[in-house]
Amino acid sequence: MSSTLLSTSQYAVEIMATLAFAASGLIEAARKRMDAVGIGVVASVAAFGGGTLRDLLLDRRPLFWVDNVELLWLVLGLTLLAIVFLRSRHLEITERAMLWPDAIGLGLFCAVGTQIALELEMPLLVAAVMGVITAIFGGVLRDMVCNEIPRVLSDHRPYAICAFIGAWVLIAADRAGFEDWASLLLAAVVASSLRLIAVKLDWELPRWRD
Amino acid sequence: MSSTLLSTSQYAVEIMATLAFAASGLIEAARKRMDAVGIGVVASVAAFGGGTLRDLLLDRRPLFWVDNVELLWLVLGLTLLAIVFLRSRHLEITERAMLWPDAIGLGLFCAVGTQIALELEMPLLVAAVMGVITAIFGGVLRDMVCNEIPRVLSDHRPYAICAFIGAWVLIAADRAGFEDWASLLLAAVVASSLRLIAVKLDWELPRWRD
Amino acid sequence: MSSTLLSTSQYAVEIMATLAFAASGLIEAARKRMDAVGIGVVASVAAFGGGTLRDLLLDRRPLFWVDNVELLWLVLGLTLLAIVFLRSRHLEITERAMLWPDAIGLGLFCAVGTQIALELEMPLLVAAVMGVITAIFGGVLRDMVCNEIPRVLSDHRPYAICAFIGAWVLIAADRAGFEDWASLLLAAVVASSLRLIAVKLDWELPRWRD
Repeated sequence: MSSTLLSTSQYAVEIMATLAFAASGLIEAARKRMDAVGIGVVASVAAFGGGTLRDLLLDRRPLFWVDNVELLWLVLGLTLLAIVFLRSRHLEITERAMLWPDAIGLGLFCAVGTQIALELEMPLLVAAVMGVITAIFGGVLRDMVCNEIPRVLSDHRPYAICAFIGAWVLIAADRAGFEDWASLLLAAVVASSLRLIAVKLDWELPRWRD
Repeated sequence: MSSTLLSTSQYAVEIMATLAFAASGLIEAARKRMDAVGIGVVASVAAFGGGTLRDLLLDRRPLFWVDNVELLWLVLGLTLLAIVFLRSRHLEITERAMLWPDAIGLGLFCAVGTQIALELEMPLLVAAVMGVITAIFGGVLRDMVCNEIPRVLSDHRPYAICAFIGAWVLIAADRAGFEDWASLLLAAVVASSLRLIAVKLDWELPRWRD
Repeated sequence: MSSTLLSTSQYAVEIMATLAFAASGLIEAARKRMDAVGIGVVASVAAFGGGTLRDLLLDRRPLFWVDNVELLWLVLGLTLLAIVFLRSRHLEITERAMLWPDAIGLGLFCAVGTQIALELEMPLLVAAVMGVITAIFGGVLRDMVCNEIPRVLSDHRPYAICAFIGAWVLIAADRAGFEDWASLLLAAVVASSLRLIAVKLDWELPRWRD
């Protein structure tokens, strides 16, 4: 079992990623007109799903949200706030609203997941896969729980592949001797930007011929 | 890794909760007209899903059903019995039939899950979350495997929140110096009763305005 | 935590099973006209899902695909090959195409999963259950991710039960003093053949009366 001590920059990235995915969960739950508990469940599942699976696969205990309980309180508070605030308004929430928090969470989680796996001396491809799993699994659970086909499979625009590229950017930066925080920042920016650009420019992945 | 030794009262609660959720799985599988294997799978998933995820998250090994194999035999026997018994009859199984086993399993699993997490000196909110996860995850898997939106999200009546309240009752009883078995009983009765009352009186959770 | 050292025959079986399930995932993804990333995700989930859950439940680390990274590269390569090769053709892929890889993977994974659990001195029923989980969980994830009801529940022909029988064959062979590789071979052949025969002869599991 490996220690789960995070560096300051890793901790900052983990908080921001958790908040970004919690926001994406709140938005999806609001769009589905879920009740108060459903909103909390979807936000939690999106925020904590990817990191929890990463920690299980890498056998890191205590889990990141057990070691940093303030993350749980934060998401709980955010949910209550969202319920109070949003219920009082007639908001039209479009699917586009999810783009930014989802893309930012994707980049941050892929960077921190890959770096943690590297520190545990995982083979490079395994580290990249851990980054991708951290980045996409929260969103997969969020979509499955909302009874949608996971975005990563139905979107037809690059999603998982942005995280995969970001993971290799982190690995390259790490090998090139960058500081930890600089590698995190670079990888997260590359992955998130790629996703945002892909959606704006409507890039499509190759598909089967019909 | 932590020992999985259970006190006698925890063991009794774990058995009853497992049987209650196995029964809820049998009922749902019967309503879906599943075949013999499907019935066994749904009953097992409902009975063992929540406790298994709890043990994985808390890194408790051997898992509770590995340490207490008689639980596996019990659910296997129950499934065979159900197949033989129910096939010979023209039973009309309504959704209401699931209410009692589901509510009882919810209360028992939330109580024992929270107590186990407390013994491992988890922070209080984490202990409560572990209780809720133990209580609801078996039902979530049961519903997902049957291709239904999980009850916890679609029901619009308090479900997870009953487990959350029950978990805090256990924590309060524990802090107040109650005996272990008394805390378990109190928390389970509170959580199960809340769920039963909520359904009978048709309480609804707050939702988004349309 | 237990070592994940595999004997040569276990390693060979694990590779073949992984490739067989990867192929089943490629076929299902192709039938669903998924894009390139979707194909990779479905193939990986099918190939690694069962063994990963087995390793998590048995607390074996590093996971089999971390200890044998060449498996990851193999599935990645297979996916790229499939994309390049299949896109250039107008293949009509029928559901029957999945029968063979799925049945072979089922037999191989059930044999190796049961044997690994036996080596860890699990109770016999637990070892059998681990074999079944290793054998079916990749397929369950593959089907869920493709938004289909898992084959194990919807097929109405023996599937999980073939793995269950294969697991007991392995246990019996082990008790009878067979060499490890002979037990593996025997159990895998029994389980896979049972599944193939069941489909060819259209055996049906007992169902509820209507």
